[in-house]
Amino acid sequence: MSSRKEFRDLVPPEEAHEAIESLGLGGDTEEVPLREARRRVLAERVDATLDVPGFDRASMDGYAVRARDTFGAGEADPAFLELAGAVHAGEEPDVRIEEGTAAEISTGAVMPEGADAVVMVERTDERDGGEAVEIRTSLAPGDHVMLAGADVAAGERALGPGIRLTSREIGLLSALGVDEVPVRAKPRVGIVSTGDELVRPGEELHSERGQIYDVNSYTIATAVEEAGGEAVLYPHAGDDYDEMERILTEAAAECDLVLSSGSTSASAVDVIYRVIEERGELLLHGVAIKPGKPMLVGEFPDSAYVGLPGYPVSALMIFRHFVAGAIRRAAGVPEPPTATVGAEMAIEERYGEGRTRLMPVGLVGNGGRPLAYPVDKGSGATTSLVEADGIVEVDPDTAYLGAGESVTVTLFSPDVRPPTIFGVGEDDPLLSILLDDLDRPRYLAIGARQGRRRLAQGVPDFAVVTGEGGDTEATELGDWTREWGLVVPAGNPEGIEGLTDLVDRDLRFVNRPTDSGLRTALSEALDALADSRGESRTELIELIDGFELAARALESPARKVADGSADAGLGLRATAEKLDLGFVSLDEQRVRVLANADRLEKPGVEALREALENAPVELPGVGR
Amino acid sequence: MSSRKEFRDLVPPEEAHEAIESLGLGGDTEEVPLREARRRVLAERVDATLDVPGFDRASMDGYAVRARDTFGAGEADPAFLELAGAVHAGEEPDVRIEEGTAAEISTGAVMPEGADAVVMVERTDERDGGEAVEIRTSLAPGDHVMLAGADVAAGERALGPGIRLTSREIGLLSALGVDEVPVRAKPRVGIVSTGDELVRPGEELHSERGQIYDVNSYTIATAVEEAGGEAVLYPHAGDDYDEMERILTEAAAECDLVLSSGSTSASAVDVIYRVIEERGELLLHGVAIKPGKPMLVGEFPDSAYVGLPGYPVSALMIFRHFVAGAIRRAAGVPEPPTATVGAEMAIEERYGEGRTRLMPVGLVGNGGRPLAYPVDKGSGATTSLVEADGIVEVDPDTAYLGAGESVTVTLFSPDVRPPTIFGVGEDDPLLSILLDDLDRPRYLAIGARQGRRRLAQGVPDFAVVTGEGGDTEATELGDWTREWGLVVPAGNPEGIEGLTDLVDRDLRFVNRPTDSGLRTALSEALDALADSRGESRTELIELIDGFELAARALESPARKVADGSADAGLGLRATAEKLDLGFVSLDEQRVRVLANADRLEKPGVEALREALENAPVELPGVGR
Repeated sequence: MSSRKEFRDLVPPEEAHEAIESLGLGGDTEEVPLREARRRVLAERVDATLDVPGFDRASMDGYAVRARDTFGAGEADPAFLELAGAVHAGEEPDVRIEEGTAAEISTGAVMPEGADAVVMVERTDERDGGEAVEIRTSLAPGDHVMLAGADVAAGERALGPGIRLTSREIGLLSALGVDEVPVRAKPRVGIVSTGDELVRPGEELHSERGQIYDVNSYTIATAVEEAGGEAVLYPHAGDDYDEMERILTEAAAECDLVLSSGSTSASAVDVIYRVIEERGELLLHGVAIKPGKPMLVGEFPDSAYVGLPGYPVSALMIFRHFVAGAIRRAAGVPEPPTATVGAEMAIEERYGEGRTRLMPVGLVGNGGRPLAYPVDKGSGATTSLVEADGIVEVDPDTAYLGAGESVTVTLFSPDVRPPTIFGVGEDDPLLSILLDDLDRPRYLAIGARQGRRRLAQGVPDFAVVTGEGGDTEATELGDWTREWGLVVPAGNPEGIEGLTDLVDRDLRFVNRPTDSGLRTALSEALDALADSRGESRTELIELIDGFELAARALESPARKVADGSADAGLGLRATAEKLDLGFVSLDEQRVRVLANADRLEKPGVEALREALENAPVELPGVGR
Repeated sequence: MSSRKEFRDLVPPEEAHEAIESLGLGGDTEEVPLREARRRVLAERVDATLDVPGFDRASMDGYAVRARDTFGAGEADPAFLELAGAVHAGEEPDVRIEEGTAAEISTGAVMPEGADAVVMVERTDERDGGEAVEIRTSLAPGDHVMLAGADVAAGERALGPGIRLTSREIGLLSALGVDEVPVRAKPRVGIVSTGDELVRPGEELHSERGQIYDVNSYTIATAVEEAGGEAVLYPHAGDDYDEMERILTEAAAECDLVLSSGSTSASAVDVIYRVIEERGELLLHGVAIKPGKPMLVGEFPDSAYVGLPGYPVSALMIFRHFVAGAIRRAAGVPEPPTATVGAEMAIEERYGEGRTRLMPVGLVGNGGRPLAYPVDKGSGATTSLVEADGIVEVDPDTAYLGAGESVTVTLFSPDVRPPTIFGVGEDDPLLSILLDDLDRPRYLAIGARQGRRRLAQGVPDFAVVTGEGGDTEATELGDWTREWGLVVPAGNPEGIEGLTDLVDRDLRFVNRPTDSGLRTALSEALDALADSRGESRTELIELIDGFELAARALESPARKVADGSADAGLGLRATAEKLDLGFVSLDEQRVRVLANADRLEKPGVEALREALENAPVELPGVGR
């Protein structure tokens, strides 16, 4: 473990930005078929090379005439013209309009020689069995004729460089007959994930060997595409120097930029470091930013290189902060106006490490500007990806952000849309069904106790709590009851009948954490049991094997029972039935949805209230 | 021509909306690979089916220990533990931590049995040549260990239905090992262009036969994709019943919705009408809206049908107004917030036809809300597609929109970005080069005279004019001179020397329109010639063959010379040299860029001023 690199000389973030700009990404032009040009950026000006229309064109169904033959004509005194023929759209006229004659013409057809106006069919009458026509109006030359080049003329400027092509520009290019469009090439970005433990989603996972699914490859590939680049995934590289060199060299040969990502292991970083130094040049290693200290910037002979941190949220933040802009500029794509959001801090946040911090925040609508609240579950948590909406950059001199202070949030991607409603509190299966009816809700199942606390701080729109009391400030939106107890194996082979079995027998139990409303219910039941036995709760607890083994998630105790590693778990009837397990009922518990009293008018909250009123209750053990 | 349908019973637009909603588009679910799931909409809730991580995981490089073996340890009194082995990420541990032992462990590795904490390598020292380790700190159980399921636990709600997938959601799905994602199916939309005269871009165009490039197919296909649908292009159908029936039936069998589009000919509409009536059901024909009266809504046994008007701008407006929303809802895609813009009318607009009007408007930034100005070149003009940014819906009771009135503009597509600067006036080759330096400029080459007039009305940001005088309100941003005269065939075979040749000889001339600054210069030169000859200008003009033949576009007279249909054309030296033609110089003319005095601070105007100052002048006949 002696070869580990220390990142002693951290450079300021500006130098990292400059180093990445110095890599000179992009600027190439490629031709793409018009049909595939949507959202691409025009690389060059396009001037018209032909007239549109390319001929004098009838713009009405009717008759092509010499205008002077209709001078003075009107309803009372129509002009009489002999029919010399007909011209349809898409045909070359085979008729010449001489004095006193006309030709039937359809919209879009070529004006026949000699004609200089079209009379609409409604102002005419056929005569002599279709051999002639009477014109009941007087025409001027050019009436209902679109002259060649009237729409666009050859040589005219049609579209300038830098335009991102939408339906309308593709329409104009179609009119000009352009079928290959010169557009800014998408920078090719190779993504090399490192780490022997990584498995691509869809492949079999061996947890016993410490395998985990590779999060960064697809996350960063998607983020590259969001920035206008083309992502190329390379196979995982382990910590082996030769393999890493082969994969990085291949990616560098094929791509404009190579991103390594995925490994949290120092030895893999060491190997990359050596490969870059030997096959290219390392421009900087280590940036004074949190997270992202171990960021690398370098170049291979024909490709740029950036090494991202291993933790998914850190990797995405560093990508978004340092790399996305360079890809966008290389692709000629402007940052959409939806990519940043002005917000105000929901709570105060202290920080004092003396380096720039990229702080992941969630957003919650609050009437005017949204509130931003810090999300920091540790950067190893992939759930932070969806619990935060973007990043606030906090500069090194800022030790304190006050509640209400203005901040700019760079969304994780321009397509991110913050939730319409944000709730916290107890996990519950009926709640989960209710949330399905809402538009992009965010719910953090942090337990009833934490839910109450956070609601009191005023950040979330609602909290889900259990039991009665408190919350004088909040407004109850609705409630239901749920049956809780002990989840046991199917058929209850141990014949467990209640809490006394846990206390008196040698059973392996799995509990929920103290923040959970279920745990509160269990504690109260134990108090009652202790009272009835004349013992203290502490004495009873000491007799329960696993009482302190608190599984964070609602179904986890039941799943421990299902996989045979426990005899009983604290849980709900609904969970037991869902997992085909047995259930020993202990009691019913009331679950209440409490709204932030300041947000009752918020559309998301109104939608939740409606969902609460209308949702059918079809879960085992759940009642209204 | 007797079979033409009259649209006598126009239905109100609301009925058209209802008819399209009644077609019941979409709602299907499909599975797509995670790697291709970006921007797709989740069709179902995704709950975690596994714990992440799937094992107790070291979150530091260091040593796995039993915490109780380090109780009381510190810098002065380290704990001494024998090394029992090592565990790396991606490996199954082959070591068990007994009392008094430790194992080297890397970040991400599985905690070996018996260990309950990790000490970071920085707080340790190897001893006994790597056989043992000293721990200089005291640990609690769980230190630097991420428990199985701590990030996401099996059974937890991960993502709700209706979420549009971005990098972050794809990250979370990766962590859960999901590689096939249930998403809302994109409605398949078949596009059938009708009209014998249509040619796909890229194919050879025979203008003499009245062929034109097909604009609607690609425009509408792109608009379908912008709305979240999948567009399928079918071959052009002419007016032949059997062919139309075959193509429409095929499209209806393969698609959820068929759009016909492209034909301006009444007979093609008649044929479609008959096909729908015989093979399906026509729900409505004719909507009380301008444009779009001839819109059709119907259904085939397995597909919906909407007939769009033939003119490109009308087709796109009707698609956007009636169809895009239905496709979006079918795809589960929300309308992005960028799809509409609040604006105020730049000028008054009168209207009194008693039916809803979709008014195409351009947008120009004006400090606060942008100004919207009507663009109406006749719906046959494809240039309106890029000269307008979107649509204002004007209801039938509104006969008058005052300047400054608030309107909502639905952009032609959510990706449309209005121009950063809007100018009008004289066409000029140096101007075109200057515009290339600006970000999304819009310039309408309507001639110097119209440019002056529009600038005085206050709508554009700048105007390009020729000659001196006037414009006391405007600020001159810059100017240049250009050499103008007669463009003649290469080598000047007729030996033309000046205007007297046009007057006295039998030469075919092509002029520019009276709004053009070049035409003004020519008129002044003719005045001078008339004076010197003691004749009137009118007398001279009558002697010039083609003086009244005014080509709308700058290069058109020169191109008429190039194709042999004229002996001389009014134009610039720069144009003559670009087209390798001869040139007879008559004079120099000053071209001036005048800015709207209220918009000098606008970034686009500042960029134009800068471009004017810095642009190199490398065009023949152009000077500063």
